[in-house]
Amino acid sequence: MLSKNRIKYIHSLELKKNRKNENVFLAEGHKLIADLLPRFQCRFLVATSEWISRQASIPTTDIIEVSEEELTRASLLKTPQEVLGVFEQPHYQIDHSLIDKSLSLALDDIQDPGNFGTIIRLADWFGIENIFCSPNTVDAYSPKTVQATMGAIARVKIHYHDLPELISSLKKNTPVYGTFLDGENFYEKKLSKNGLIVMGNEGNGISKEVATLINQRLYIPNYPTNRETSESLNVAIATAVVCAEFRRQAALR
Amino acid sequence: MLSKNRIKYIHSLELKKNRKNENVFLAEGHKLIADLLPRFQCRFLVATSEWISRQASIPTTDIIEVSEEELTRASLLKTPQEVLGVFEQPHYQIDHSLIDKSLSLALDDIQDPGNFGTIIRLADWFGIENIFCSPNTVDAYSPKTVQATMGAIARVKIHYHDLPELISSLKKNTPVYGTFLDGENFYEKKLSKNGLIVMGNEGNGISKEVATLINQRLYIPNYPTNRETSESLNVAIATAVVCAEFRRQAALR
Repeated sequence: MLSKNRIKYIHSLELKKNRKNENVFLAEGHKLIADLLPRFQCRFLVATSEWISRQASIPTTDIIEVSEEELTRASLLKTPQEVLGVFEQPHYQIDHSLIDKSLSLALDDIQDPGNFGTIIRLADWFGIENIFCSPNTVDAYSPKTVQATMGAIARVKIHYHDLPELISSLKKNTPVYGTFLDGENFYEKKLSKNGLIVMGNEGNGISKEVATLINQRLYIPNYPTNRETSESLNVAIATAVVCAEFRRQAALR
Repeated sequence: MLSKNRIKYIHSLELKKNRKNENVFLAEGHKLIADLLPRFQCRFLVATSEWISRQASIPTTDIIEVSEEELTRASLLKTPQEVLGVFEQPHYQIDHSLIDKSLSLALDDIQDPGNFGTIIRLADWFGIENIFCSPNTVDAYSPKTVQATMGAIARVKIHYHDLPELISSLKKNTPVYGTFLDGENFYEKKLSKNGLIVMGNEGNGISKEVATLINQRLYIPNYPTNRETSESLNVAIATAVVCAEFRRQAALR
């Protein structure tokens, strides 16, 4: 039996301040829950009997069995998917040497939850384990972002940190990449297996303060060049095209 | 002065059946309107005096000058942007030889308006002038799709057509590409400058009927391979990574 208070609590997690106060986030659907359960502390689950009966074991004692109808009342999705869960937000230690040794992403004020979730998902695909976000980047634990990750949020570590400070703390020879309209065609550059790729805000790109710290200015060429076209790519799309090329080159070596 | 009836009419264009009956669509914001006005028949514009005063000429006589407050009442956006317009839907003739001669995209039941708009935008970036959509693909003229194109819908031609019939009508040696989990690593293939790239539905991929007609099965490798990762990429992301690689190879030749 799902109490009104519990439904109210679940819905309250749409707001960042409530997620922060409680240090939790909401996730929905069997795929996402299956990815999260082995890794994140689960506060409680709300699930249909069909979902529960399919599980060999469930690492939480607070499971509320509900009808499809009750689940619909609790869910934030148009089409609820058997199960939803409230999980504790993880807090990762930032290890700066990770950036010197492996490839990471930095997001400078990304605002759209869907874009952010899509970026987390593609980072997972391309083996990027850490994403560093400026403090004004949208919350990684908003329900829309969590859903858009399709489970990748269980594997990719999200850190919020002042980006100029972070970049300044790196070794001098660690490459810091960013995409700019006046950058160099990135297909003509040897792209490294370590360092930081900075992606900027949807409307304004990379902030001035961060831009001055970037030592590798890249450009994604359009095709054919010198043609009237869209002025830019969506930030998740640009991130994907850049990450794919880094990994294509890395696989060749 | 903006009448209640006009506001009602604008809001009615959220529904596909109303857009179809009227053969129109809604677009908002100065960037999008600037891209559309020279190319599409405009039924009417709703704009602030600031926007109107900045235009050298406006190719429509039906312009309703409004206050910011009135614009907010008419707009479907959270943050209205000076101007909105109702335009006639274009109807393009399908020229099958285009596919034999240039690179085109085919979308097999894409359902998310945002994904679709993002695909139109990236197609424009990568010089893909025609997108062929299965009849069940979401409407290209839904406000969310139009906004997500950021103006690319003024340049990229969208055609709805039965895909098996379309593919069957192509020349025998025209390549028809699709991405599959059991396809060939697409970085190891010589990708052509012509043909059709088919992208499938968000949940189900490419339909069986279409899949049998694909003669080039591609796979986007993850990195590092053979690692636990996300099972797939978002369809707009996959489209971008594929189109970028086609164009990278084309620019090398």
